[in-house]
Amino acid sequence: MALKTSEEYAARLARMRPNVYAHGKKIRRDDPMLEMPINTLKFTFDAVNDPELKDLLVTESHLTGEPINRFCSLNMSIDDLYKQQDMKRRCCHRVGGCTQRCMATDTLNAIGVVTKEIDDARGTGYFDHFIEFLKYYQANDLVGSTAMTDAKGDRLRRPSQQHDPDLYLHVVEKNDKGIVVKGAKNHITMGPYVDEHLVIPTRAMKEDDADWAVSFAIPADAENIKIISRVVSARPRIELDAPYNTFGVADSVVVFDNVFVPWERVFMCGEWQFAGRLAQVFAGQHRHSYCGCKPAITDIVLGTAALAAEYNGVEKSSHIVDELTELMIIAELIFASGIAAAARAQKTSSGIYTPEFLYSNTGRYFAGINIYHEYDVLNSIAGGLPSTIPPEADWLNPETGPDLEKYISRGAKIPAEKLHRLFRFISDFTCSAMAGWSQYAGVHGGGSPVMEKIGVRAGYDLESKKKIAKHLAGIKD
Amino acid sequence: MALKTSEEYAARLARMRPNVYAHGKKIRRDDPMLEMPINTLKFTFDAVNDPELKDLLVTESHLTGEPINRFCSLNMSIDDLYKQQDMKRRCCHRVGGCTQRCMATDTLNAIGVVTKEIDDARGTGYFDHFIEFLKYYQANDLVGSTAMTDAKGDRLRRPSQQHDPDLYLHVVEKNDKGIVVKGAKNHITMGPYVDEHLVIPTRAMKEDDADWAVSFAIPADAENIKIISRVVSARPRIELDAPYNTFGVADSVVVFDNVFVPWERVFMCGEWQFAGRLAQVFAGQHRHSYCGCKPAITDIVLGTAALAAEYNGVEKSSHIVDELTELMIIAELIFASGIAAAARAQKTSSGIYTPEFLYSNTGRYFAGINIYHEYDVLNSIAGGLPSTIPPEADWLNPETGPDLEKYISRGAKIPAEKLHRLFRFISDFTCSAMAGWSQYAGVHGGGSPVMEKIGVRAGYDLESKKKIAKHLAGIKD
Amino acid sequence: MALKTSEEYAARLARMRPNVYAHGKKIRRDDPMLEMPINTLKFTFDAVNDPELKDLLVTESHLTGEPINRFCSLNMSIDDLYKQQDMKRRCCHRVGGCTQRCMATDTLNAIGVVTKEIDDARGTGYFDHFIEFLKYYQANDLVGSTAMTDAKGDRLRRPSQQHDPDLYLHVVEKNDKGIVVKGAKNHITMGPYVDEHLVIPTRAMKEDDADWAVSFAIPADAENIKIISRVVSARPRIELDAPYNTFGVADSVVVFDNVFVPWERVFMCGEWQFAGRLAQVFAGQHRHSYCGCKPAITDIVLGTAALAAEYNGVEKSSHIVDELTELMIIAELIFASGIAAAARAQKTSSGIYTPEFLYSNTGRYFAGINIYHEYDVLNSIAGGLPSTIPPEADWLNPETGPDLEKYISRGAKIPAEKLHRLFRFISDFTCSAMAGWSQYAGVHGGGSPVMEKIGVRAGYDLESKKKIAKHLAGIKD
Amino acid sequence: MALKTSEEYAARLARMRPNVYAHGKKIRRDDPMLEMPINTLKFTFDAVNDPELKDLLVTESHLTGEPINRFCSLNMSIDDLYKQQDMKRRCCHRVGGCTQRCMATDTLNAIGVVTKEIDDARGTGYFDHFIEFLKYYQANDLVGSTAMTDAKGDRLRRPSQQHDPDLYLHVVEKNDKGIVVKGAKNHITMGPYVDEHLVIPTRAMKEDDADWAVSFAIPADAENIKIISRVVSARPRIELDAPYNTFGVADSVVVFDNVFVPWERVFMCGEWQFAGRLAQVFAGQHRHSYCGCKPAITDIVLGTAALAAEYNGVEKSSHIVDELTELMIIAELIFASGIAAAARAQKTSSGIYTPEFLYSNTGRYFAGINIYHEYDVLNSIAGGLPSTIPPEADWLNPETGPDLEKYISRGAKIPAEKLHRLFRFISDFTCSAMAGWSQYAGVHGGGSPVMEKIGVRAGYDLESKKKIAKHLAGIKD
Repeated sequence: MALKTSEEYAARLARMRPNVYAHGKKIRRDDPMLEMPINTLKFTFDAVNDPELKDLLVTESHLTGEPINRFCSLNMSIDDLYKQQDMKRRCCHRVGGCTQRCMATDTLNAIGVVTKEIDDARGTGYFDHFIEFLKYYQANDLVGSTAMTDAKGDRLRRPSQQHDPDLYLHVVEKNDKGIVVKGAKNHITMGPYVDEHLVIPTRAMKEDDADWAVSFAIPADAENIKIISRVVSARPRIELDAPYNTFGVADSVVVFDNVFVPWERVFMCGEWQFAGRLAQVFAGQHRHSYCGCKPAITDIVLGTAALAAEYNGVEKSSHIVDELTELMIIAELIFASGIAAAARAQKTSSGIYTPEFLYSNTGRYFAGINIYHEYDVLNSIAGGLPSTIPPEADWLNPETGPDLEKYISRGAKIPAEKLHRLFRFISDFTCSAMAGWSQYAGVHGGGSPVMEKIGVRAGYDLESKKKIAKHLAGIKD
Repeated sequence: MALKTSEEYAARLARMRPNVYAHGKKIRRDDPMLEMPINTLKFTFDAVNDPELKDLLVTESHLTGEPINRFCSLNMSIDDLYKQQDMKRRCCHRVGGCTQRCMATDTLNAIGVVTKEIDDARGTGYFDHFIEFLKYYQANDLVGSTAMTDAKGDRLRRPSQQHDPDLYLHVVEKNDKGIVVKGAKNHITMGPYVDEHLVIPTRAMKEDDADWAVSFAIPADAENIKIISRVVSARPRIELDAPYNTFGVADSVVVFDNVFVPWERVFMCGEWQFAGRLAQVFAGQHRHSYCGCKPAITDIVLGTAALAAEYNGVEKSSHIVDELTELMIIAELIFASGIAAAARAQKTSSGIYTPEFLYSNTGRYFAGINIYHEYDVLNSIAGGLPSTIPPEADWLNPETGPDLEKYISRGAKIPAEKLHRLFRFISDFTCSAMAGWSQYAGVHGGGSPVMEKIGVRAGYDLESKKKIAKHLAGIKD
Repeated sequence: MALKTSEEYAARLARMRPNVYAHGKKIRRDDPMLEMPINTLKFTFDAVNDPELKDLLVTESHLTGEPINRFCSLNMSIDDLYKQQDMKRRCCHRVGGCTQRCMATDTLNAIGVVTKEIDDARGTGYFDHFIEFLKYYQANDLVGSTAMTDAKGDRLRRPSQQHDPDLYLHVVEKNDKGIVVKGAKNHITMGPYVDEHLVIPTRAMKEDDADWAVSFAIPADAENIKIISRVVSARPRIELDAPYNTFGVADSVVVFDNVFVPWERVFMCGEWQFAGRLAQVFAGQHRHSYCGCKPAITDIVLGTAALAAEYNGVEKSSHIVDELTELMIIAELIFASGIAAAARAQKTSSGIYTPEFLYSNTGRYFAGINIYHEYDVLNSIAGGLPSTIPPEADWLNPETGPDLEKYISRGAKIPAEKLHRLFRFISDFTCSAMAGWSQYAGVHGGGSPVMEKIGVRAGYDLESKKKIAKHLAGIKD
Repeated sequence: MALKTSEEYAARLARMRPNVYAHGKKIRRDDPMLEMPINTLKFTFDAVNDPELKDLLVTESHLTGEPINRFCSLNMSIDDLYKQQDMKRRCCHRVGGCTQRCMATDTLNAIGVVTKEIDDARGTGYFDHFIEFLKYYQANDLVGSTAMTDAKGDRLRRPSQQHDPDLYLHVVEKNDKGIVVKGAKNHITMGPYVDEHLVIPTRAMKEDDADWAVSFAIPADAENIKIISRVVSARPRIELDAPYNTFGVADSVVVFDNVFVPWERVFMCGEWQFAGRLAQVFAGQHRHSYCGCKPAITDIVLGTAALAAEYNGVEKSSHIVDELTELMIIAELIFASGIAAAARAQKTSSGIYTPEFLYSNTGRYFAGINIYHEYDVLNSIAGGLPSTIPPEADWLNPETGPDLEKYISRGAKIPAEKLHRLFRFISDFTCSAMAGWSQYAGVHGGGSPVMEKIGVRAGYDLESKKKIAKHLAGIKD
């Protein structure tokens, strides 16, 4: 059975070699510090049994025909792309933010596309490596990271030009059995709780950079890998339990200190001409994912703002209605751009469909420039209370609880507990370290707006637009 | 042959009964004042022979199988909707603005959808009327107006509540042969040069308003119709010919002073429950059209700004590149929303596909709020010259022409004539009465942004979003 | 000597009756939990000895001629208003955010203006009460809260219409010696570390609300006062000391459970006609303060973004320069509006100058709508690192520290420690609970943008603008 | 008497040597084509007798003590700057746009400041030339242009680097009596109806450019000057007279084909180090003027939108109220920035006060980025009618007038004629060639937003902001 339970996932994490560092200590993967982040991933396993989600979550492996988790699947049709987008939106609603696991989905699709293209051009055998790896990945319902962003050093120099060659991860040795790599990947989400690191290049390269053009998969607890983490979890609750407050995330610096990778897990090694292509195909896939997940964040902001307005008795107020409508429009323009990217997807030589890069970029861009604005809208509608409400402990303290009950009243209709639950949720969602994390993810995850602008104009046929102008103006060249 | 030439179109206009008033006079339809506006429509006839456009422009009648102009066709598939959107974008590039003729396309589709729905509900025979009319329309390659917007009087009252019943067009008599109607339709684009007026209601109605719930087609020169017009044409040229300067537009008040309509041309008469539906289906179709034509306007702005930057030698300047990229994103987000509307279109009982209303609205909305911004960008990049450049007559005057040639130089590379052509085009496109018309059309055509906001939220499932918030916050009702 | 030291301030806090509750416990005012918030206030005492600040911080009492802290002074001239604005900007730079103490300054000024106006109209003696209280306040260099915002209950009802009369603070008893009040004030910044609560009404009232029209000063540890607090401090540091990480803030619900106030400390009692006036004069003063402090926040965002760009080697990049310039413009437009408010200040009957309400509002409004945008800019320029950088403990851990040193390199020029210091500061400033607090304060403090819009249009002479339109259009009434 | 009448002004124009070219012909200055533009200037003469304006318009010459028109005065105090700003706002209300004449005021002030500075540094006698010229200018109540912007050729090269030396105006000969200059100045507003051209450099220069560093005053009809004009007048009226429709503007290319200037009218000749300074002082003065006149444009937009909303019966609609409030805020932030610039003005060695450059720039910038938005708001509130309303001739035509009367009704309360007047005014103001001119002037007049950004950051102390960041972050250099 290729669908695993969340308990099976957690159990295998617990068995891994401890090579995770967090907040000053080396920890095991069943350390309580990782509980909330791991809960987010566990949701993606549990969701296959959820009546509302299972039709989206469970798909068939195009390799084996077996039911698998869609997060482990390739996009073999336009309809698969539509479903990916829907799945991400629906799942994010449940965890109140990023489900994280699509990182791997998009990386696998990108590796699939580009290994085939390298093979087509060079007669290499990477695509077979990939397919074998994918069978293993699907059969075990694995979780992979996207180990992409290098340390990068001097931002104006290429890998081979850095004063320290390790500032981009690179091959330091090749032998019969495999390769040895050195370097570090930064900002790696899920670092401490993935099964595998999926390593891909972070940028286009030139011939000098061939040693840095490398892609592979490696178990997360392999020898000489160190995972140094920043864990961010929702503000914990004492008695006022809420699903939102059970989830978290961890990012990490993943250090590769002469790590051995067997050839059968290598997907690129020296083909520098394809480094940029792999980075770009991943970006296109992942920005398409954002066209699914970011509208979900907007949905949460929208629903929460609407509820706050309702509890405050101002839900008919014209400026509230107007601001809520703008949130709808933001969410749906992003989502529409994702639909368009899927509708105009290209079938690659591997059989995998890649969403139209232009529309993945416009959707992700629009998400990125609006995320702070959305927090602003929710903040504005909620009022100052999320930043000043005394902590839950004071609500539970019999000396102060009755005061907090009495003085939060919005009239007789809404019970005080509902108000406390709502405004505490808003506080946790918008006025916390976790909120900061989400704001950064909203701007930079999948590529910041400035990167999408580059993506948009890179492939845009500006000359044809100038020709239109010349035609209308009667200018003949 | 169902495809007519532009000369045939012009000739039949010339034969019509003169009932057009313009700028203080009653005029014939071959009056020079109408030449530029009619040129715009003539383009839509000529385009069927244009190698770059004919595949989009010519389609097959689903009624007769004959080749017809796509502007006369119904959308019988999602692919038809994709093609409509592409056609509009491509055609607008050629006339430098609105092609106008899609008004009728969208109205015919809307009448097709709703006459069938009325028949389904009431056992009336409107759909047959419509199909017969459509055969005639397609066979003759006709041009129709959308005679929708009533005078409206007091904006806060329904038709039956107005102090003057004529402020909404209404039925004043019914007999064996047909109906007699009275009232006026305002803002009617193409009024002086359509073959037929396609009359539909402008709003939802209640039972009292049954006499105002009326839809029909009527020859534009029928008895008792008066067409009072405002003609706006591009600034004319003396010698520096340019395609842009050959086009124009006219809007009009179309007065119906007891006009007889035979039953076979009546599509609704008293079914007030369907008045709002017809208005809305038209709006959905037409806002989808805007997702095709507005990106074309942006394309023109973009290409022109890029050309101005190139001629000024600043095309690599980072803030220019950035502003041009933003134009690309605006255009493509609107277009993407149109693609999404088509991808999620609904098949109605008539067989006609209606684009998803939500995405037609988000696309049109985004166009509407950006139009002035786009003029701003072009203005900013062009500099002040389009507003201060001495007229063409001074360029042609031997006493001043050499000065204007000498002092427009941007260095030696770009000939002065090209500079004059470009900056005069920008002047005509952005700094003229015609530009004002385009700005108004950009905001209000197809419904102003405030109407799209209403459209978006009308059908939006806000409750489901509140449920997401309640779930995350642990609020149980 | 009317200038006290920060130690004297802290010592008197330590002597107060413990009536502060925080995070589930009753605490003394020298509890470590309050250390960082109190540090912020201590800065305002220390600053009188700072060579760069003392000329702004120390002024002369217009009552006694003695040197006092400007935070305890009244604005007796336009120049005082200019200096207030400068002082706030300069002080906020030092604490990296809100200095808090101006709440009292603005409240004292407002009470001064309105007690005189009540006396003028009613022959009461409130202004004398106020002057006596102010002498005491200045002589002891006190810190006061602005206890203004009531619980408010049903937002659509006035105080006397609430289902629970305590939802607005009100007088429950009057006798020879004084009054007894009941209710609660919410969102009260500095609640746990002020000497005095300065209580003023939160809104305009009608005759029925006379019992709720009450203003007074009361020691913060008076009988029957309970202060329930939310403490927010900067993320603490282990070894990488930084001034920013020594400051904090606390807001509180201040519960008045039948609190006695002697007449000589009462400034309004029943004069409901002046409740709205007092609320508005305070709002005008405090929004003027925001025209000083919010530019300081922008200065910090600007300086930090510029430094991040410099360390990343992209400080000459055109889009960076452009974004930094926009921050300059935001800061200076807000500041300019404050200067204008001062330049057009009105002298009131008390001799106190009130800044022009219109310009206090436009400045504060512009700050409020831009705060999230500013965080967005800093986030965008900083990149994702502030949200993913492993904690300081990992930097100090010898097993991981060297990796974090090696892989943060931006080339050889900038030492790793400086990079760690900078990006940790950005993390603490923008991606933390404290950042959330600042975002809420940035929107709602002193009145949210929607309140400033109301403030702007309330006094705006729209009729005169319509007359201009009528004149130009040739419309004669 | 130094105050002249508008008739005297027109009479002296009529007497000038005809050297104006317009729309293909050489014309006299009393040609009807120039009537509307000249009306705008005549207003500035008539206003000295207007009871509402004369206190602002009439001031005392600081040279002679005589009453003069403030447009001819120097700013000898901060209060003069306040009054300049007020005067411009009030006057623009009356002509419905730019009053034009402040061009000269600002140029005279700038020449005054910089001639003194050159004399201080070089011992030249330019300031005396200037003072003598100013006496003559004031005594005759003259009108001057700002002949500043050169043809500029290749935008990336300095004057001395151009392929044609005339692309910047330059000195071709010097002799005992004066100098001879060649070149052209572009975009020269009021070209055909000024008494004098006030010529100043358009940019900073280097030593090679010394021949291009030249400033002087010259009668507009001097030998070898040619003025080639683009005239833009409001849409003329037949019977529905309206003040707006009596005004216009003309810009021009002013060609200097070996023009002789006597030494006593030369204000700079070769002092290239001061070319940039003169350009900048003028820019600072003129951007300050925009802080007065642009709010007036916003006032007109605001009043007109408010009136349209009132006539349409939707003036209480929340989104209308909100949009009108935003217009108020835009106007007042610009105006506030002007007040701040005056409040912090510097007294120069000439005695003239120059407004703080930073705040002149922020105010002008904010005006420039909002102008299109303001047209958008008015358009949105007005609806489509201004672009589709049949011309006045149809309203006067007895065959169509009654229809246009009947069907414009907004209910019984507002007479049709008022509606026609209002919507025709909006059409003329927003949907006409004149509107295009105003949009361009709104963006580029006085320097486009990109120039103000450069102005803002040029003098901004960014290093001090970085120091704040370093202090807070604990970074020690």
